Amino acid sequence: MKEIQGGVTAAKGFKAASCEAGIKYKNRKDMLLIFSESPCTAAGVFTSNVVKAAPVMWDKEICGGIDAVHAIVGNSGIANACTGQEGKDICEKTAATVGELLGVPKNSVLVASTGVIGMQMNMDAVVSGIDKMAMNLSDSIEAGTGAAEAIMTTDTHSKEAAVEFEIGGVICKMGALAKGSGMIHPNMCTMLSFVTTDVAISHDLLQKALKNVVQDTFNMISVDGDMSTNDSLMVLANGEAGNKEIIEEGKDYDEFVAALFSICEKMARMLAGDGEGATALFTANVCGAKSKEDARVLAKSVICSSLTKAMIYGHDANFGRILCALGYSGVSFDPERIELSIESSAGKVDLFKKGEPLSFDEEYATKVLSEKEVIAKVNMNEGCCEATAWGCDLTYDYVKINADYRS
Amino acid sequence: MKEIQGGVTAAKGFKAASCEAGIKYKNRKDMLLIFSESPCTAAGVFTSNVVKAAPVMWDKEICGGIDAVHAIVGNSGIANACTGQEGKDICEKTAATVGELLGVPKNSVLVASTGVIGMQMNMDAVVSGIDKMAMNLSDSIEAGTGAAEAIMTTDTHSKEAAVEFEIGGVICKMGALAKGSGMIHPNMCTMLSFVTTDVAISHDLLQKALKNVVQDTFNMISVDGDMSTNDSLMVLANGEAGNKEIIEEGKDYDEFVAALFSICEKMARMLAGDGEGATALFTANVCGAKSKEDARVLAKSVICSSLTKAMIYGHDANFGRILCALGYSGVSFDPERIELSIESSAGKVDLFKKGEPLSFDEEYATKVLSEKEVIAKVNMNEGCCEATAWGCDLTYDYVKINADYRS
Repeated sequence: MKEIQGGVTAAKGFKAASCEAGIKYKNRKDMLLIFSESPCTAAGVFTSNVVKAAPVMWDKEICGGIDAVHAIVGNSGIANACTGQEGKDICEKTAATVGELLGVPKNSVLVASTGVIGMQMNMDAVVSGIDKMAMNLSDSIEAGTGAAEAIMTTDTHSKEAAVEFEIGGVICKMGALAKGSGMIHPNMCTMLSFVTTDVAISHDLLQKALKNVVQDTFNMISVDGDMSTNDSLMVLANGEAGNKEIIEEGKDYDEFVAALFSICEKMARMLAGDGEGATALFTANVCGAKSKEDARVLAKSVICSSLTKAMIYGHDANFGRILCALGYSGVSFDPERIELSIESSAGKVDLFKKGEPLSFDEEYATKVLSEKEVIAKVNMNEGCCEATAWGCDLTYDYVKINADYRS
Repeated sequence: MKEIQGGVTAAKGFKAASCEAGIKYKNRKDMLLIFSESPCTAAGVFTSNVVKAAPVMWDKEICGGIDAVHAIVGNSGIANACTGQEGKDICEKTAATVGELLGVPKNSVLVASTGVIGMQMNMDAVVSGIDKMAMNLSDSIEAGTGAAEAIMTTDTHSKEAAVEFEIGGVICKMGALAKGSGMIHPNMCTMLSFVTTDVAISHDLLQKALKNVVQDTFNMISVDGDMSTNDSLMVLANGEAGNKEIIEEGKDYDEFVAALFSICEKMARMLAGDGEGATALFTANVCGAKSKEDARVLAKSVICSSLTKAMIYGHDANFGRILCALGYSGVSFDPERIELSIESSAGKVDLFKKGEPLSFDEEYATKVLSEKEVIAKVNMNEGCCEATAWGCDLTYDYVKINADYRS
């Protein structure tokens, strides 16, 4: 497997377009369209929030079935959540408009929205945006990047990645885009991420692979503990690479899962590192846990704590906050066994061992904590399971962005 | 029942003292002592964090037994948590020093610490502090207020309350102090709060009353979602009022519970409103829920969300965030039934009803959101259970305080 340039247009047969539709933002792209003429197998994981946006309900039904999917249409600015029947109608009309223009059924079109909750979209703006994009679909790298830019809200940069790999001697590709930043605490998946691949794979295995991979990638990040109403991660596989369709687990399936994991991990790290107002990626690695689930819960508790996040922002080795966050995670353990250190590209500081605080050089610790990625390494010394979670620091800018976001 | 002036020295027979012991802070009080010559029945609820401070382990054992309790000694600046065997020894020596000076057994002395985790206390400073305080015990109101001041960390003001009530025709009193501010997300109780009363009540009923009352008071507040290693709420009842000892449930017990509830609710609201960096008390009232526990979980989810908290700070009626927080609370419900409004002393704004956003006057909403207490009122329309939770807004100052707290 190797990294290649590009995003959602990297795999064979996928085209993209984006435009300024004027949904809410002024003078910037706010709509995207992804299209594959070849019918795609689709899988998705969605927010487990009881309050689900209209597009999430639409997509869940489509991804749950085995009908072919051809397109994803998305917008930023308005989330189309808590918008009642009018919101559902707008979602369906959006899919129908894309379907008519591209000559595919409306229920082969997935819809995704992100932005303010409880505000209605202007259908005229949506339709004119789709008109523009349908005429400008392209398989160029730039078209994929444009789509990644159009879906941004408070993100500071667009997020995409692509890989090339072999399945049964056939070269396959996979690419993705994602948007994150705020209201990020996925339980099923992230805010919005779309993965496209030219691999041929059955619907059941595609869904299985996605559910498996999401657990240790998107589900292990948090910016602010708020799980969105719109979280959606969707994969489209159009089979254009020409590999023998993957219909059972084995070497080919494992290759595919490895590629999907690599793409999802990359996107997840990017989302966490570009959290609203963030100055650093804050990674927690927990090993020696009694079970994989324990390791996940412990790692996530560390990166979710407002106090550990503020400590990273302050470059302060106030390690008691990390122990405190482990302690209230819900996992039972013996605090006397814990070993804790902080690492970054500037070095490593041991902080706690066998129930006792260790003495350390404060100046050196501050240096270690001042890098762009800071890793809290925890060994529970109780088992052999490990997990990693990704978050970011808590800054003035997080507060500023969210006190001002809507108004 | 009526409110009276004072705090932990309001009830008969309780004395207090405080001093500058130099534990960590300079030029401010940082130790307190509360003493009753009459032996007290004691009850306590403590953090459910797996990582417990040494004093919490000490106090749990004492409050779990039926031995008489005479004193509480406390300090701010250092939490004596994650301090290994040395921390446990310091805790025991602290109790022993108080016991020797006041002529009571060491295991009749409760210990409480709050401050930085993972740092050792200087025993000499502790001993000289206790020496000073033992000579200055007083039952004056000022002595109680001094104790409330000594236990503050990042609190902006001290917190105390007292009430007078009748049990079986006998006038009884109850008073309390508390400290809160950061790392506040109690699961068993708050950071530190001590209640003193001259009521005579059995150990079992005192513990039962406390467990009952804490659920809808201290357990319903959150500043930042971080549950401390030191949370302790302890009640001492010395029986000096002269009422017939409460040994069974009934009218007297109900009177006592009502007084305890009133004191604990007052302290809980004070803690939430004085959260680190807070400019407003943010209250969530959920009614029409299917069960009491559902109502509690929903109300708490609303006040714990970083995004709703930032919205209160920004005086922005971005109500979708409230619906979003209800949705990820873990409680299942029908979003189409929810009614949501925002209230304050400046008025009321209806925001959402029957699955549809309502139109409202933004300027008026901003006015309503600019008061010192803002209440989110939610009717689930699914049952008849209600709960209230208290939090605060998320501000630049919260980040500033916590990025700088230790260093």
